[in-house]
Formats: sequence, C-alpha cells, structure tokens
Amino acid sequence: MLAEKLYALSLLLMVPLPSFYRLYYLYNHWIMRTATYFFIFLNLSLAVFEEPAVYPLPFLATSLVEVLCLLVFFGRLTHFAKITPRNVFWKDTKNICIMVAILLSLTDLAIYGALRIYNIKSIRWSRIARPIFLINFAESRQIRRAFRSIRNTLPEITYVFLLFMFSLLMFSLMALKLFGERNLQTAEGLPYFRNYLEIVFDLYVLVTTANSPDVMMPAFDFSSWYALFFIAFVIVNTYIFMSLFLAVVYNNYKKHLKNEIRKLAYMKHRKMIEAFNLLKEEEGAQPVVREARWKQLVKLVAPDISNSHRELLLRISDDEQKGFIDKKSFVQLADLLNIQVITLKIRSHPLGQWMPRVYKSAVSQFLRSMVRHRGFVWTYDAIILINAIFIALDEETPYISYAEWVFLALYIIEILLKVYTYEPRVFFGKNQFWNWFDTLIIFAALTATILNTTLRSTTKYNSQQILDIVFILRVLRLIRIVDSIQRFRVIMNTLINIVPTMLTFGGLTLVVYCIFAIIGMELFHGKIQFFPVNSNAPYALECGNPALKDSLFARGKYCKNNFNNFASSFIVLMELTVVNQWHDILCGGRPAKLYFIAFHIVMVIIIVNIFVSFILEAFFVEYSLEKTPLKGSDEQLLDNMESAEHDLEGEVGTKTQPRGLVFKIASKRYRTVDALLQRMFEAEIPPEDEGPSFEEILNLSPTAAGPSHLTSERAV
Amino acid sequence: MLAEKLYALSLLLMVPLPSFYRLYYLYNHWIMRTATYFFIFLNLSLAVFEEPAVYPLPFLATSLVEVLCLLVFFGRLTHFAKITPRNVFWKDTKNICIMVAILLSLTDLAIYGALRIYNIKSIRWSRIARPIFLINFAESRQIRRAFRSIRNTLPEITYVFLLFMFSLLMFSLMALKLFGERNLQTAEGLPYFRNYLEIVFDLYVLVTTANSPDVMMPAFDFSSWYALFFIAFVIVNTYIFMSLFLAVVYNNYKKHLKNEIRKLAYMKHRKMIEAFNLLKEEEGAQPVVREARWKQLVKLVAPDISNSHRELLLRISDDEQKGFIDKKSFVQLADLLNIQVITLKIRSHPLGQWMPRVYKSAVSQFLRSMVRHRGFVWTYDAIILINAIFIALDEETPYISYAEWVFLALYIIEILLKVYTYEPRVFFGKNQFWNWFDTLIIFAALTATILNTTLRSTTKYNSQQILDIVFILRVLRLIRIVDSIQRFRVIMNTLINIVPTMLTFGGLTLVVYCIFAIIGMELFHGKIQFFPVNSNAPYALECGNPALKDSLFARGKYCKNNFNNFASSFIVLMELTVVNQWHDILCGGRPAKLYFIAFHIVMVIIIVNIFVSFILEAFFVEYSLEKTPLKGSDEQLLDNMESAEHDLEGEVGTKTQPRGLVFKIASKRYRTVDALLQRMFEAEIPPEDEGPSFEEILNLSPTAAGPSHLTSERAV
Repeated sequence: MLAEKLYALSLLLMVPLPSFYRLYYLYNHWIMRTATYFFIFLNLSLAVFEEPAVYPLPFLATSLVEVLCLLVFFGRLTHFAKITPRNVFWKDTKNICIMVAILLSLTDLAIYGALRIYNIKSIRWSRIARPIFLINFAESRQIRRAFRSIRNTLPEITYVFLLFMFSLLMFSLMALKLFGERNLQTAEGLPYFRNYLEIVFDLYVLVTTANSPDVMMPAFDFSSWYALFFIAFVIVNTYIFMSLFLAVVYNNYKKHLKNEIRKLAYMKHRKMIEAFNLLKEEEGAQPVVREARWKQLVKLVAPDISNSHRELLLRISDDEQKGFIDKKSFVQLADLLNIQVITLKIRSHPLGQWMPRVYKSAVSQFLRSMVRHRGFVWTYDAIILINAIFIALDEETPYISYAEWVFLALYIIEILLKVYTYEPRVFFGKNQFWNWFDTLIIFAALTATILNTTLRSTTKYNSQQILDIVFILRVLRLIRIVDSIQRFRVIMNTLINIVPTMLTFGGLTLVVYCIFAIIGMELFHGKIQFFPVNSNAPYALECGNPALKDSLFARGKYCKNNFNNFASSFIVLMELTVVNQWHDILCGGRPAKLYFIAFHIVMVIIIVNIFVSFILEAFFVEYSLEKTPLKGSDEQLLDNMESAEHDLEGEVGTKTQPRGLVFKIASKRYRTVDALLQRMFEAEIPPEDEGPSFEEILNLSPTAAGPSHLTSERAV
Repeated sequence: MLAEKLYALSLLLMVPLPSFYRLYYLYNHWIMRTATYFFIFLNLSLAVFEEPAVYPLPFLATSLVEVLCLLVFFGRLTHFAKITPRNVFWKDTKNICIMVAILLSLTDLAIYGALRIYNIKSIRWSRIARPIFLINFAESRQIRRAFRSIRNTLPEITYVFLLFMFSLLMFSLMALKLFGERNLQTAEGLPYFRNYLEIVFDLYVLVTTANSPDVMMPAFDFSSWYALFFIAFVIVNTYIFMSLFLAVVYNNYKKHLKNEIRKLAYMKHRKMIEAFNLLKEEEGAQPVVREARWKQLVKLVAPDISNSHRELLLRISDDEQKGFIDKKSFVQLADLLNIQVITLKIRSHPLGQWMPRVYKSAVSQFLRSMVRHRGFVWTYDAIILINAIFIALDEETPYISYAEWVFLALYIIEILLKVYTYEPRVFFGKNQFWNWFDTLIIFAALTATILNTTLRSTTKYNSQQILDIVFILRVLRLIRIVDSIQRFRVIMNTLINIVPTMLTFGGLTLVVYCIFAIIGMELFHGKIQFFPVNSNAPYALECGNPALKDSLFARGKYCKNNFNNFASSFIVLMELTVVNQWHDILCGGRPAKLYFIAFHIVMVIIIVNIFVSFILEAFFVEYSLEKTPLKGSDEQLLDNMESAEHDLEGEVGTKTQPRGLVFKIASKRYRTVDALLQRMFEAEIPPEDEGPSFEEILNLSPTAAGPSHLTSERAV
C-alpha cells in the first residue's frame, strides 16, 4: 500500500494538481476511514433495531439511518472515483458491487415502505446484502483476500465433499438395510432408522459427533456387533474425511496465500520502479533521484515522521553521501518506511533534571538498582501467585477483602517504582505491550474498586457489574506470570501474532453470521419463546410452543436459543459453530435441517478449517523463525539501519550533547505472518529485475510456472 | 531392512556357517513371524476370556494359555539372541523390555494363582504389561516408531498443555467469581458453578464441546451478556489451543518422521557399502564385485525371484556388461530389489491356445473389442447406478428381489467377459486392486444369496445375518463408480495409500485401548448393568443402579456403555474418543473424571492429532506427486530399468519367439508415504559418500545440523 502511495505521490511531484492532491489526502485521512467503518457497522447493526428487534425503534428511524448510511457509501464511492483513473474504476468489481448493493437496498426500502403504508407484510430481503459493504470497501482488503482464498479453494473442496456425500449416502443405505426392519426405537420412543432421508441427516449429525452415542444406542442394545458399523462410519467420515477437508483447505490456503503475497511483492517492486522512473535524473550515466526531491517525496508520504528519522532514512539510502539515491536504494524505500522505528531521545530521567540531588542520592541509586534487579521481577511474580490464591478464596471474609487493597497498593507501588527507575517515555513506548497491559489493568481495577466502595458506602449496595469487572481484571493480572517464563514465549508469540489476523476472521465470521442470522430470523422468528424462570405464562416450560412438550429442547432448557432477534441469532449460530447438540437446538422440520447443514458446511467445514490452517501456518512460521534467523534483504536492511543509527547517534552526539538520539527498531516480536511471508518472497526478486508486467502479475496463478527463481518454493 | 539382510548375507558368503544360516532363515521365515503375531494377539485377547469375561473360561485355562504365550515369547527372544551379536542384543531396550514383561507376568500369575487357592481376591495388575509384547517385538517397527515420535513430541506438548491448563484455570476462576454467587441452577436442578474443581471439569468438557450449550444455558438465561464469557472461552480454548496442539503435534511429527527416515536412508547406504567392502575384489585399480558372487548374493537374498528378473537386475547394475559391478551400482541393489517388478510372460489368451479358431473368429473379435471399448465401462457404471436405486427401494416386492438376481447375473457376465478378453493372469495380477475387489464382492454376494435362498427354501426362514452381509456387499459395489471418475483419483489415492499406515495407528490405538480398558474394568466393573428392553429386573431402567435414577445416563438409555467386559470397554473407549457426551457416559465420582481426562489427553490430544497430521502429510505428498514427477535417482532408476527391459525383451524375443517376457513396474499408485519420503532423502546422499558412522546416524537429532546437503530440507 505504501508503494502505491509512493507511486501516486511521485506522479504528483511531477504534475502538481493541488485539488487532486487535497482529494487524495482527504480520501486517505484517518477520520474518513474511521467514519466509513463507523457507517458500515452502523448499517450492519441496524438489524438490532429493526423488527424483530433487540431494542425496537420505529421503522421511520431505522430507514432514515439506512438511507443516511447508503448516502455516505455513495459519497465515499464517488470520492474514490475522483481520485482513480476512469477505466480502472469501472473495471473494478468491488465498486460495481457497492453500487448494485446501494441500488438494491434503496429499491427494497422503497418497496417495503410503500407496502407498509398499505399494511402489506413483506420481507426486507436486501438486508442480506449489507455485509457486501463490509467486504467491498477498499479498507477491508484482508477480508476480501480471505474470501478470494475461499473461492479458489471451492472446486477442490467440492470434490472431497462429493466423495464424502457419496460415502454418507452409502452408509445411510447400509443403515437402512441393516436397521430399518428391526422395529427399533430411540430413547425417546421414536422409530429408529426407518426413513432414508432421516438416516442421512442423523448420520450427517454423527459426522459432527453431536449425537455420538445416542444414535448408536438402539442398534448397539439390539446386538453388540452393530457397533462395528458405527465405528467404521466414524473412522471413515469423522476422522478421515474431516481431516481430508482440513488438508485440502490448508493446502489451498497456503498455496493461495503464497501466490497473493508473491503478487503483492511484485506489485510493490513494480510501483517503486515506476516511481523511480518518474523522478529520475541523470547523474553521469546513472539514473538517480536527487536528495532534495527524495526528501520532498518522503515528506509527502510520511508527513508525521521526525526530521531526524528522515535523515536516518536518507543516510541508509545514500550510504556514501553522494547527494543522490540510486535505483536499488530507492526501491527499498517502502520497506524502510515500513520498519517501525522508535525515535528515542536519550535524556536523563525528568526527575533527575528537576531535582538532581535527590534523584542521584545514594538511597535513590540503591532503589533504582533494586528495581532493575531480577529479584524484583521474581518478588512480584510471587506476589501475583499469592494474589491468585486469595482470589480463589471466598472474599466475604473481611480479612481477604482487605487483602485486595494491599495487593492493589503493591501493584501501584511497582508501577511507580518502575516509572521512577526507567524513563517514563521509554516505559510507555509504542511496543511495550506488557507495561501498557499492566498499568491499564491495575488502574482500571483501582478505579472500579474505588467506585464500588463509594457506591456501597452511599447506597449500601454492591454494584454487581462493577464487581464482575474487578474480578476479571484481577484474574487477568495472572497472565503476566506466564509471559515471564521463557519456555512459553514461542507459544505466546504465536498467540500475539495471531491477533491482527484474528480480526480478519472476525470480519469473515461476521459476514457469514449476519447473512445466516437474517435468513434465520425470517425463517424461524417467533417459533420459540423464552420466559424467565418463574414465569406463569402458558407453556413456559415448553418455550411457548406446545409442540415442544417433552422434547429434548425443552428439557434441556434451551428456550433462549432462538432466532427472535439479531443478538440471540448470533448466539445460536455460535452454538452451531461449536457444533454440539445442534440437532437438538434445531427443532423444526426440513427447512431447519437444510439451514443447519448449509451453515455447517460454510462455517465449520470451510471457515473454521481456514482458521485452523491459519493457526497452523502461524505456528510453523513462528517456530521456524525461532530456529533460523531471517535471511536475505530484510536482515541486511536491519543491519544497515543499525550501523547508520550508530553513526548518526555519534555525530549528533558531538554536536549537542544533551539531545542524544537513539533509534530503536520495534521488537521482532510483533510481526504478522503476512509481513514475514512477504519479506521472504521479496528477498527472491533481484533488485535490478523489472519483474513481470502488471497484467502478468494480476494473472499469476499458484500453479503456473513463474520466473524460475520464484517457483522453487522455499520450505516455510 | 533389505539392506540389513544384504549385509548379513554378505557376511555369510565370506564365512559360511550352515547352522547360523539356517537359524537366520528360520527366524525370518513367514511362518515364524505369523506365529509370533498370533501369540501376541492371543495373549492380548485373553482379556476377553478372563474375568470380567465376555466368554468366561476357567482360570486354569486362561492361565495355561498365558504361560504358553510367554514361553513362545521367550523362545522367540532366545532365537533372536542366537542370531545377534551378544553386545548388540543386550544393548537393545526392547529385548530387556520383553524379558522384564515375561518375568513380571509370570510372577503376577503365580501370586494371583496362589492367593486364589486361599480365596483371597487380588488384582491381575500385570495385564497392563501385555501390550508391551505388541510394541517390542522386532516386527512392529512402525508402532515403535510412532511411540518414539510421541515421546519426542511430549516436551513441546507439555508446554502448550501447561499454558492451556493455565488458561483453563483462569477462566474457571473467572467463572467462579461471575456465577458462583448467583444461586443459578442447571437444567437438572443442580447447583451451577459453585465448586472450583467442578467448574474446572465442566469447562474442560466444554473445551471438547461435549456439553456445549448446556453448560452455558443457566448463565445465558440469567443475562445474555454472560454468553460473551463462554464465547471468549470457546475461541481461546477450543479453537486456538486445540489448533495449537495440532500444530505442535504436526510440526514434531513431520520433523521426527524426516529424521527417522533420514536415519534409515543413511543406515541403508552404510550397510550396502559395508557389504560391498566385504565382497569386493580388485579389477584393475577399481574395487568391484564379480558377477558370480553378485548372483550368489541375490539368490540368497531373494530366493523367490525368477532367473530372468535376476538377469534384468544384473543388466541394470552392470550396464556395460563388463562382468563385474562397481560400488555405485552395487549400492543401488537394495533399491532395485525393492522395486516391485511384475514379470509377465506375454502369451496369448489360454482360450486362444486351446481353441484358436473359435477365439479368433469374427464374433469373438467383435466381442473382445466391445469389452475393450469405453462404452462397456460406462454401461456398467449405469447398471450399478440403477442397482443403487433398486437397493434403496423396498425389497419386499417380488419384482425387486428378482431384479437383484438380474444384477448379479449381469455382474458375473461382466467378469466373465473381461476374463475372456484379457489374459486371466494379467487380469488378476498382483496390483489389480479393483479387479480383485469386484470379483471378490460379486462372488461373495452370489454365494451369500444362494445360501440364503437354500436356507429359506429348506427352513422357510431368512437368515438375517446372511442378508445383512448381502446388503453390505451390494452397497460396496457402488464404490466402483467413484473410482472410475478421474477427478476423484487424487483423493482415492490418498485414501488407498493411507491404508497400510492405518494399521500402525490401529496398533497404537489397540495398545492405548487395552491399557485403559484393563484399568477401566478394574475401576468401574459391575457399577452399571445392562438389561434387555423388556426386563423385569429391579432398577432395569436405572441400569441396575438406584443411584442413577433420573440421571441423563439412564434417560439416554446408555446402560450398555459400561466397563463390565473387555468388548464393551472398547466400545465405551471408542465413544470417548469421539468425545461427545463423555461427561454423561462417565457417571462416577472423582476417579471417573480423572480417568476420562487422562484418556482424553492421551487419545484425543495426542493420538488423534497424530492421525490427523498423518492424513495431512499423506495428502500433501500425494498432491505434490500429482503436480511434479519424482526427481533424482528414483526416476533415473526406473528409466534404466525400462530401457534394460526393452533390451532384454528384444533379445529374448529373438531367441524364443513365443516366450516373450515383459517386466512391468508396479503402479506408482500403491506407494506409501514412508517409501516416498525415504527415496527423497536417498536422492540427497551422494553415492560416493560413506556417510556418517553408525554411532552418528543413531544419534542424529532433528535439530542438529547434519551434513550441509541434508539440512536444506526440501519442501514436501
């Protein structure tokens, strides 16, 4: 993305068009992006207020908000059209998608509104189209990529799925022949395995293990040998076929991920060369970019980096200080800008400046050396452990509730001591995740505890909500112990690196959930009602549905698992994702069964498997990183950077002693899998090479043989 | 293994000791191996006859059989000691293991027998040691390797497990604080989330998704927001941690598999060089093995291959026909012998020889060309499909039961036509899996149907067992359609290639199940009784245990899920492996919970994950095979073989026209993953290289840097 921006801005440097320039900046401004996201989620969350609603709002209100959202989307799209060449804009499917979705939504809204006036009930079918906005706006590149990866995986999944269905149908046929005429009964006294379609469904549920021993028991009770049928079924379908699904998804995920990232790497390289060609001037026989123009560009691209940081980048790109940058160094610019550099001004502790005598006294020195000692960390680990024991104990006893104050005080002392010892701006640096984590949790706990105590002293009543939060915050503190053990670091690193991409899966899941929730509400709305425990409503125990009398659903008190509003639909879908008891949660007829099977295929077979593949890949990348250092240009880049730092530091140091600058490269710990893979592929593109053309890049397929040095895939 | 044998026999060629030679052959004779397996399984199956027995036998009988088994094991071990150098024998842990197990079993048997005489009840604890014989006899190399792989994976699994337990304990603590004081009740009216240990157990069960919505419902009914707690729990523990387990297991499985196979490849290379050094003579300056000695060796190693096959091997090894074999070619011998070569004598169809006029008549020619036509296959695919529809229909109608005879007749005609067209010995060749499959199924179905009809006509009674078998056989025929579709081939190949290694997992599972079944029977024997449906026994509905009144266990009619004998223990363990409802199947107190958690960790977290890893790997290998042909020495070897074949064929052909010989290399389809990986690594060892010493090979670790050309792992 940076490369794209660099290219666009190189263009600008050549042909300055102030209005275009302003539009471009405005489009990419963080407020505009945040606003777009806000309206996308507002649009999606309308389902909470529309009928069937969690919090009902009049139709006029929701439809006005929807129109507003659609207008915003339209505005954003026209804005995008203004800063994009016309042919590029109209070729892009995602723009067409958004336009169609806006049109459809408006039409549907108009029709529904008109029919409503005449009191004719109709369906707001365009609500299913709402997730389209989440997918197709330029900002959700990751989600789009995930969808593309799913689309690419579909053909192969289909073959495995057909084979799986074949196996399922065959086993069902056998089951029909083996058990159909034995007049067996299920535990509920229903006929067992009589109807072919019902057998298929029951065995499909068995594949998900949800009805595991139940479906077998009648046959097993009849003759022990029949257990062999079910054992064979489970081995073939649950173990082998489900693993095969994972294998296919994983294989394709990896293949397409690599392809996408290869494309990205090529694209970046290409754009950087084009930018270079726009800006180049001749220096001797060599095309170069002069320092002044280079600085102008960097200022445009990254207006918020400091002068000294820019100076550092220049020093790295022009390491012989010739006053110009050659092609090879210029191409690296995007990478250089991507390396998070924390500019630290080495200055003494502010307290040391304000009251140097006190801060440098023997007592203070001793205190600081004590805090720096390893024993300090150990002591606090021990304190946290003791705290854990206290949490587990009953807090009704006054001693123990006082102890909590002691612990809070100890933690606050710890933070104060650390801030006293380390420079505060270093301590709360950008990537000091655990420091932030600690401080936030402890201050939140402190505020909540104080709030609760005030509440209790004034109203003599515990606010349970606040207490709950305090409990959770207290428990979260324990995570710190784990991170302090070296052995758990690889695992913790994997977990932390997963977080950003988890958001992508969150988006993917949101899209699927939204669509299924809206369909589910249309189909099953109002069939099941939930009544509080002591309700006197008729059929309260049967979830308001006499048909459910004595069903497993009612007996399991599942009444709150219904599609009566958006929120509870989400919870039901979540339970269906976990898979267990889904045959009980569904208690409708054939449409319910089809709905549930469709959801299972989309969510469990495809998306959960992609999620698992992703975690597998993340772990393998993290693991191979632990074993072997990064090779190639990346390492070299970091090396260059570090040596340049030292130069700069020394030099600046001689000029102005107190303003010592240190550039720190952000920890290797917080890197995403994507970024790692991308660097890996970049290392394989020779810098002189122009790479394939744009067209070729876009059509790169994972199987086609690219340039020879690329096809030899490196083991990840 | 072949390399080992080659080495041992090269030794023999130098120092012929007839008695040693006979002992060696006897030990490796297939009857001896089969007998060993027979006694191992006999020993294991004793659990079926010992108390608590499926088929009770007197103690004297079972103990006599056990003593017999132990004697056989001892005999086999001493036999092995005779053909192994003394220091090698005593260094090997597996021999020591067997001896200790024999001693322990005998001691235990003696003590138990003695106590029995005085009517004192004691426990046959040595029964747990029985699977040791399955693991430690030389024949079950694969199972041992799997166990070694598990042992090597344990440390890393332990770290993830500790982290997982930490997360579980933390969430439990939160749950205790959030729900403990709300006085909530479960659907059964029991207190909800009051006791810390019970919460830990409930949440552990939730990780396995077995109690998925139930455990959440009370809190969810109380407030919808509490669902977030369970969603967070499931995402972190079920999705992330369980995937992490798979990642760790898969990563280690792959790493150790590669290491083991690298070791094997080195070992083979080493042994072949030693054999060469034993047999070598000087020819000019070059050390070589002369043809006569080479032939003598091959005859000893593979006494059952034909002269012409041996001639072929010689032609490949000594391609310039110099009368001797150099080191490089000699080292390949084990690989050459491993390539399954089917020696086919091209001869005309036997019918063509017996009645040439009829067989070569126009009608016969037409018939044969018809059978060879693609339409013939399609016609039969259509027939099978129609048959499938008939199977699904009710077979009570006389028309349909007659139709089955028509289908059977059609299938038999198909086989006869094929045998008429193709040479029968080709048709029933070693690797013609589907031909065998078809023929066997159809003849089994034919016999069973005839048997059933005879039974019915004589006793007027359908034998349901035979009918069941016929049904299953009829359905199995449908598999043929799938295999005829090209698209499904990769998947079918993976499935077929998995079969041999499935046996290893079968062995692994058997060992784990045996141990857990024996422990389970000691702990839970007799607690639950099963009564047939219309039993009048007291507490028949409560499984003979009044404590189970109104429990989910009794309501689900789970009474047959008990540990009352070896067979039903196996079924229960199988249900526990599938994981669902395991908290209901267990209905004891704390020992039951611990037992089930232990089983879950061993079976589901470790063994099932290894199984999944194995399927993933098999699929990836198969998939990469489809895309890229095998490289390196293997391909070259096959090429050499093929060109030599043609030579030989031509030559032999000129001498004796009718006895035309064709060597066919067995299909690439039936190769195991191991074999593929092994060849891959072998290709990386230069033939001149002596490789590391034995000691070095045995101590190769997956992380240590081996010779540089080996550490650059190729992407599988």
